[in-house]
Amino acid sequence: MANLKLVNKTDTQETTLVQISDRVTIGGSQLTLIGGPCSVENLEQMDTVANTLKTAPVQAIRGGVFKPRTSPYSFQGLGQEGLSILTEMRRRHGLPVVTEVMSISQIEAIASHADMLQVGSRNMQNFDLLKALGQVDKPILLKRGLAATLDEFLGAAEYILSHGNPQVVLCERGIRSFDNFTRNVLDLGIVAALKQLTHLPVIVDPSHAAGKRELVAPLAKAAIAGGADGLMIECHPTPEQSVSDARQALSLDDMVTLVRELAPLATAIGRTVEISEEISEGEESNFSLPQTIAA
Amino acid sequence: MANLKLVNKTDTQETTLVQISDRVTIGGSQLTLIGGPCSVENLEQMDTVANTLKTAPVQAIRGGVFKPRTSPYSFQGLGQEGLSILTEMRRRHGLPVVTEVMSISQIEAIASHADMLQVGSRNMQNFDLLKALGQVDKPILLKRGLAATLDEFLGAAEYILSHGNPQVVLCERGIRSFDNFTRNVLDLGIVAALKQLTHLPVIVDPSHAAGKRELVAPLAKAAIAGGADGLMIECHPTPEQSVSDARQALSLDDMVTLVRELAPLATAIGRTVEISEEISEGEESNFSLPQTIAA
Amino acid sequence: MANLKLVNKTDTQETTLVQISDRVTIGGSQLTLIGGPCSVENLEQMDTVANTLKTAPVQAIRGGVFKPRTSPYSFQGLGQEGLSILTEMRRRHGLPVVTEVMSISQIEAIASHADMLQVGSRNMQNFDLLKALGQVDKPILLKRGLAATLDEFLGAAEYILSHGNPQVVLCERGIRSFDNFTRNVLDLGIVAALKQLTHLPVIVDPSHAAGKRELVAPLAKAAIAGGADGLMIECHPTPEQSVSDARQALSLDDMVTLVRELAPLATAIGRTVEISEEISEGEESNFSLPQTIAA
Amino acid sequence: MANLKLVNKTDTQETTLVQISDRVTIGGSQLTLIGGPCSVENLEQMDTVANTLKTAPVQAIRGGVFKPRTSPYSFQGLGQEGLSILTEMRRRHGLPVVTEVMSISQIEAIASHADMLQVGSRNMQNFDLLKALGQVDKPILLKRGLAATLDEFLGAAEYILSHGNPQVVLCERGIRSFDNFTRNVLDLGIVAALKQLTHLPVIVDPSHAAGKRELVAPLAKAAIAGGADGLMIECHPTPEQSVSDARQALSLDDMVTLVRELAPLATAIGRTVEISEEISEGEESNFSLPQTIAA
Repeated sequence: MANLKLVNKTDTQETTLVQISDRVTIGGSQLTLIGGPCSVENLEQMDTVANTLKTAPVQAIRGGVFKPRTSPYSFQGLGQEGLSILTEMRRRHGLPVVTEVMSISQIEAIASHADMLQVGSRNMQNFDLLKALGQVDKPILLKRGLAATLDEFLGAAEYILSHGNPQVVLCERGIRSFDNFTRNVLDLGIVAALKQLTHLPVIVDPSHAAGKRELVAPLAKAAIAGGADGLMIECHPTPEQSVSDARQALSLDDMVTLVRELAPLATAIGRTVEISEEISEGEESNFSLPQTIAA
Repeated sequence: MANLKLVNKTDTQETTLVQISDRVTIGGSQLTLIGGPCSVENLEQMDTVANTLKTAPVQAIRGGVFKPRTSPYSFQGLGQEGLSILTEMRRRHGLPVVTEVMSISQIEAIASHADMLQVGSRNMQNFDLLKALGQVDKPILLKRGLAATLDEFLGAAEYILSHGNPQVVLCERGIRSFDNFTRNVLDLGIVAALKQLTHLPVIVDPSHAAGKRELVAPLAKAAIAGGADGLMIECHPTPEQSVSDARQALSLDDMVTLVRELAPLATAIGRTVEISEEISEGEESNFSLPQTIAA
Repeated sequence: MANLKLVNKTDTQETTLVQISDRVTIGGSQLTLIGGPCSVENLEQMDTVANTLKTAPVQAIRGGVFKPRTSPYSFQGLGQEGLSILTEMRRRHGLPVVTEVMSISQIEAIASHADMLQVGSRNMQNFDLLKALGQVDKPILLKRGLAATLDEFLGAAEYILSHGNPQVVLCERGIRSFDNFTRNVLDLGIVAALKQLTHLPVIVDPSHAAGKRELVAPLAKAAIAGGADGLMIECHPTPEQSVSDARQALSLDDMVTLVRELAPLATAIGRTVEISEEISEGEESNFSLPQTIAA
Repeated sequence: MANLKLVNKTDTQETTLVQISDRVTIGGSQLTLIGGPCSVENLEQMDTVANTLKTAPVQAIRGGVFKPRTSPYSFQGLGQEGLSILTEMRRRHGLPVVTEVMSISQIEAIASHADMLQVGSRNMQNFDLLKALGQVDKPILLKRGLAATLDEFLGAAEYILSHGNPQVVLCERGIRSFDNFTRNVLDLGIVAALKQLTHLPVIVDPSHAAGKRELVAPLAKAAIAGGADGLMIECHPTPEQSVSDARQALSLDDMVTLVRELAPLATAIGRTVEISEEISEGEESNFSLPQTIAA
């Protein structure tokens, strides 16, 4: 893009590797899978999810604790308590943690608990948040805005890079369109374009695009074949009871099945998915949460 | 809307009056016109604009000093110096001032200089900003997001109201669509719907919708006939030299002509526009700005 | 438009007048109103509508007899019998008749019964139909496609003109968008643009844009203030019982009220609406229809 | 879909096989590839293309002879002479032929020359054309409209089936959206949905979606991984000299490369692409065309 600098790719440049933990890197030949529920609900829920993710294997766990909701009266996330649960997941299961940051005031708390900070679609052009994240020493997962153009998406990433943080991963998650059979329209054209224009890794969130769990697997496969460097997928122990986005979460069984089906696809395009079961069990912990959350 | 409370209108409820200065109120039978450049550039520019607005008459002056720009390398606004210029406009010309707030950290400075704080389209769902503005004792001008639904727009307003600030004015400014002849598509259907669903005043920004100055006047007239409580229109002493949005700014002459043409339309729908020339000359001032700005 | 010829307007050119009956012309300073139900259902329905339209006054009557429906199992229109009813309306009430033509094979029958042939949104780029209509000696009402750009809309008109028929009226009726509160988004920006780019008259259909009757009047007023040369509005004696588009039809009382409210708006922009009651009673007739239709 | 019948799929139903020649069937485990230029330009061009397609191998050849163009002054296709060239391709190379039908009047000529009749996006709801194609004994390739919903797309197919022709293949080709980096947005969500809702085969046209040749291969791969039954891809001996859609056509070399890359992807999802070189050389022919075309 003519008016940008740091995000642009030269013809010979490889994808930048963004490391989110000792073991997990985004942008290499091995695809990166991130899974977990829309919202962190309680310790047991997350523990069940993490146990499945480890063995799938999925490389990182996601879960919202500060939730951007259309109505102020909808569940807004567990907040600080949710962060404690996420940290506990990393300690117990060795999974790096991804969660959304909605404001500058949350950065410090989230950065001390999470391995990667997600900027949600609604905040893709919250420029002061982007500038502040440019000064954070953690990778940023930048989701495309609901109606953001390619230029705007790359411009948003440039804000982070130009303020000092080179660790940015882009995430296509579907755009607003006229048909409401799917929640959004997954735009794999922009994924293909981004892979040619920028050196930043690009992952895809098929869950928010589909909005219906039965459409997630085909879109996940399409994204991988189309060149994405990884996926972020919503899953839940009991999807229909999810406090948010219930309709689009995969069951844990379906999540495991999907990961298995991705392996040959990855091979077919000259990439890999992790298949060994050797993820660390994590450290011992005496973690205890308030009864209301752990319940 | 089912999941909202404070923004909803009962069948018999009148539009809430939002007062932005001693003399200027939005939501009554008299339409409110807000004019000014996209960006505050210097004192002379604003003084020229204000002199025209006073006599048009236009009731309030706008001008961006913190600018949300796609690229971090584009002009980002004059910042604090721009605020001083805006305050000077109120002192010299008696015009209340509207300017955009992009982050919580800017609220204090802007609230002490401006009469109305604008939330831009990109921040319509920056929920922490909305919550913080709920605690400000100034009216808020909330612009619709580029692809925001009716529910999302009203939900965003509800965030402000539910956090304590009842002084919210909604602003339709066009939505993203497939045709690029106009910059956005002005959605007067949502204006009609909002007037029926919420008691909050609704104004229209035809400049950002049109993106071309020759289309602004017809859209402004359409908005008034369609029920809008006012207009926010970009104008500039030398539009083609504007540092931003040059293509859509009206010349000052065209601005005056438009205001005159709105008068009979207002009458036709049982409303009025201010026609007297008796706006106060404002207080005397010994204001001086750094040479670089005043020049 | 660079690649078009006949539709383009020179700077000094007036709007072309398209005459649809002895008394009714579209494109002059007097606005043209067209009303009627989505579908012609029976003689009594149309007679009731026509009696109201005459006195409103509305200048022409519309009603579909060949209906484009998403499902082949939905009501497809009365066909030839509907055409007979439309002709009878002209004879009884002196109202020119507008109805949709969906295929070349229908042109002859429709052209012999109707005063203006409507090309629906789905057929805006049915180029063979457009070419055939270029050889018809009747005015054509060309509705904008659901996602047609300005270039495509004018290009479609150019097909008709370049094949010999200069009597084309353009009609904006809303475009597909992401929000489903309204059925479509009325794009008055394209109306303003068309009035500057082409000499063809431009009317607006607020009914299909709104999709909800309570939004029709504000959009109708907006269209007139925004420069449209007329309106096409759906109305029905018992809207909730309409066989198609029931949700968007005005009652006949609301139609009359709307026409009255348009008069001062027209004056405000230097135009007029017909206000006299002197429309001819039409000729005497011994028309009789099959019992099933007349019932 | 509730209001449709023949297109709907039961839980256990397999994809219907649509046979377009003795050797080529769409909907089975073997993917079907269709290639060729946007427009048939001359015999030599098509012969060059066909020679490449045969060996790629690509199973069928496409080429427009009646072209739907925005402007009436743009190249409208070779018409009847183009049909002769297409027939000659089948005779010389044994490749079944796909070409677009734009009107009822063209059906007879096209059906006698082509193996599959394509309905273009602009005609997806040209219901009289659909009904007429319901009475044709040739497979129909139905392209999704530029802004057609899932319901409308399936409804259009139901028109063809309910009028007697069960041989319908659906084709997703991108929808209109706000970003103009790609020409359209390829909607693989609807492909996934269609595969679950209808028994009709579904193929994808990545060329019209991408609008830029460098984006075609990733979208083609994504479509296959996402469950499409085949692809239709534009290619040309000298893409930059194509009379239409020059920017999106693959070179013949790139076409061959893409086909090779699809093979392992097909295997990965339990499907196949044809890899043998044993396509018949076709019959001998003494075909001669007017000098102007053959040149």
